[in-house]
Amino acid sequence: MNYKNYIAEFIGTFFLVLIGTGAVTIGNGSPVAIALAFGLAIVLMAYAIGPVSGGHMNPAVSLAMYINKRMSLTDMFGYWFSQVLGAIVASSVVKMIIASMTDTSKVPDGFGSNSYATISGGMAFFVEALFSFLFILVILMVTSEKFGNSNIAGFVIGLTLTVLIFVGLPLTGVSVNPARSIGPALYAAGDALSQLWVFILAPLVGGALAAFAAKYIFNSEEA
Amino acid sequence: MNYKNYIAEFIGTFFLVLIGTGAVTIGNGSPVAIALAFGLAIVLMAYAIGPVSGGHMNPAVSLAMYINKRMSLTDMFGYWFSQVLGAIVASSVVKMIIASMTDTSKVPDGFGSNSYATISGGMAFFVEALFSFLFILVILMVTSEKFGNSNIAGFVIGLTLTVLIFVGLPLTGVSVNPARSIGPALYAAGDALSQLWVFILAPLVGGALAAFAAKYIFNSEEA
Amino acid sequence: MNYKNYIAEFIGTFFLVLIGTGAVTIGNGSPVAIALAFGLAIVLMAYAIGPVSGGHMNPAVSLAMYINKRMSLTDMFGYWFSQVLGAIVASSVVKMIIASMTDTSKVPDGFGSNSYATISGGMAFFVEALFSFLFILVILMVTSEKFGNSNIAGFVIGLTLTVLIFVGLPLTGVSVNPARSIGPALYAAGDALSQLWVFILAPLVGGALAAFAAKYIFNSEEA
Amino acid sequence: MNYKNYIAEFIGTFFLVLIGTGAVTIGNGSPVAIALAFGLAIVLMAYAIGPVSGGHMNPAVSLAMYINKRMSLTDMFGYWFSQVLGAIVASSVVKMIIASMTDTSKVPDGFGSNSYATISGGMAFFVEALFSFLFILVILMVTSEKFGNSNIAGFVIGLTLTVLIFVGLPLTGVSVNPARSIGPALYAAGDALSQLWVFILAPLVGGALAAFAAKYIFNSEEA
Repeated sequence: MNYKNYIAEFIGTFFLVLIGTGAVTIGNGSPVAIALAFGLAIVLMAYAIGPVSGGHMNPAVSLAMYINKRMSLTDMFGYWFSQVLGAIVASSVVKMIIASMTDTSKVPDGFGSNSYATISGGMAFFVEALFSFLFILVILMVTSEKFGNSNIAGFVIGLTLTVLIFVGLPLTGVSVNPARSIGPALYAAGDALSQLWVFILAPLVGGALAAFAAKYIFNSEEA
Repeated sequence: MNYKNYIAEFIGTFFLVLIGTGAVTIGNGSPVAIALAFGLAIVLMAYAIGPVSGGHMNPAVSLAMYINKRMSLTDMFGYWFSQVLGAIVASSVVKMIIASMTDTSKVPDGFGSNSYATISGGMAFFVEALFSFLFILVILMVTSEKFGNSNIAGFVIGLTLTVLIFVGLPLTGVSVNPARSIGPALYAAGDALSQLWVFILAPLVGGALAAFAAKYIFNSEEA
Repeated sequence: MNYKNYIAEFIGTFFLVLIGTGAVTIGNGSPVAIALAFGLAIVLMAYAIGPVSGGHMNPAVSLAMYINKRMSLTDMFGYWFSQVLGAIVASSVVKMIIASMTDTSKVPDGFGSNSYATISGGMAFFVEALFSFLFILVILMVTSEKFGNSNIAGFVIGLTLTVLIFVGLPLTGVSVNPARSIGPALYAAGDALSQLWVFILAPLVGGALAAFAAKYIFNSEEA
Repeated sequence: MNYKNYIAEFIGTFFLVLIGTGAVTIGNGSPVAIALAFGLAIVLMAYAIGPVSGGHMNPAVSLAMYINKRMSLTDMFGYWFSQVLGAIVASSVVKMIIASMTDTSKVPDGFGSNSYATISGGMAFFVEALFSFLFILVILMVTSEKFGNSNIAGFVIGLTLTVLIFVGLPLTGVSVNPARSIGPALYAAGDALSQLWVFILAPLVGGALAAFAAKYIFNSEEA
């Protein structure tokens, strides 16, 4: 068991959720700021902790890596645990900072959680699964030995999240990442908690489909 | 016939149109968000599917590549078909999502289509042809063996679209890409459909001129 | 005489002024959009025409290159001519497009020219000279054999212009480039023309000082 | 004593504080512009003067480098002096420009200094220490021989500051850099001066902890 990898995934996911949901709430960011915050957080951690653990920071990414035999089942569960723990600790810090503020009139409710209100649950599932498929397909391609570019991969992966948020922010908040949704949902409760299963299941479905698409359409796993 | 290339072009153009026109409509993006959405979508697909098919995602780019003998005529038509199909499927998804929303008061009309209202058709043709010329000249230079930089080319190409949108968004929406215009025009109808020929023809003219400029002014096709 | 270099500088400066002043006027851009438009235009041309001519697109840059013996005096004058011509043609196109618009209520006056109103001429000169010094010092360092990084240099140079615009846009518009100021001033007339000497002379002074600083403080010209 | 390094740190920190606090005040920037101004200023100087001095521009970074034996104690103090001097000169220039403006109605007070009002001193200390820890942990990882990527490191480091500002701007202004806080505080006085100790001490604590984390958790200092 490589505990360094698990610490790296913990720190990476902690950073992602702190920055992303912190930009939404504490920073009261514009849509451009929110999209850049989530996306660049991925970019930065891809370079900072990617060389240690691969920098998944997302259970759906780890699932796709497992399916395409880039990691063991044991490691996948270890990564999942570290990622979810990092997200929960990040949401705890965000909640603690908000609780300490004397003026929260500009802080949106919900701790940056994901939920849907203007579309049905089925459409939310479709959007999250489709966006996760696209996001993780990009990840699998640019990190493959066959098609990848290790210098640039981190930027490409993070900015893919950014552009998906440009489209889907008003629909679901764009999770594509079960850990990122679990952290704030525990504190936000309400819709974020009752709809949480969508933001856990849809990314895993999208990630699994991306794994098959990369492997069988583009032969991404051949050296 | 390399069907993998055609699937790659389909996915790339699908992603470009989904992200770009999705940011305009579903995301109700600011001009900066729209310009970054279209531009970064190109950047990301250049790295994700570029190593498979070259990542044209644009019939005018494929025409220029054909003129400068970087692809066969058969492949050019195959690419065109895949690109237009990808764009139409993307616009279908955008339309389906919008149709499912219970509140579309913030969604602009037109499915992100291209049209012109404050300038004449001739001026719109000139702007689209000039911008396509500049866009595709950049593409031909930075992907040439003689002058190119394969690490950075994807970023340069996509961000060229971004800055063109900073200028021309209020004029024509900046297409420079027949496939990107055909997709939403089929659903938007009206001006987008009656003016569609401008957004098909002008990029092809600009692309052809760029092919000649790169080749005969800068000798881009010499090894 | 290498006429390809001169054509490259013409196209590069044409693109820079079209995008930058076009984003200000036709695009009615936010300060962030304007800063990114000018900066990214430099980035893109650095990669597209930089391998041909070096991608100066700025007489003050060419002066610094001449002072530090990276180009001949003849070429410097050839570059100056091409750059100023490219800027004038770009401003002509911007003017032509604006003239054709049926609604120019959102188009700021002045064709994107540089001028100052809230500070004195002396302070405007100081700001333009200081910003040109910093801009061109960065250029000389990141393109030097000793300290440079040819992969990244284009991004660093362009984004330096972006951040300078974040600071100085309300003061002078931030030229740091005589060609970029001459183009629109010819059409804007008024202050832009009477104050033009500041935007020609200050960048040249700043560029010359940057050439000395790079050479004598950091030995940038040693291999 | 390598005086070139000290001049490089002086210029780098001068540029950082001029651009960052200048964007806040003179440029009256949006939160996105401010976050990009500070972050990109780091990026640009990392490439322009990084090859000379390492491009710390921050006493807390130099402390972490000293703790992990990447620089001597003498050099650390020399860097600290140069950095603080560069910041003070930058704030003097910002003050001089503002003083010369005939209309300062759009210029925020405080010369871009750091302070806190809606959270307690203890929480401000926690936020600055945590953000400094994350910022400097990223720096140590991406500049290490073991995990680093010298081509990309400058972008990763600067953009880490950008995303931290997306979150913490309304809380403390996000210093994570004693020199950056000292410069404007001398002119702003008031809270910026009385709270200055937080913005000096917290980044040093965060930086020291990051040095230990990088070294003992990830073995960043092994070749």
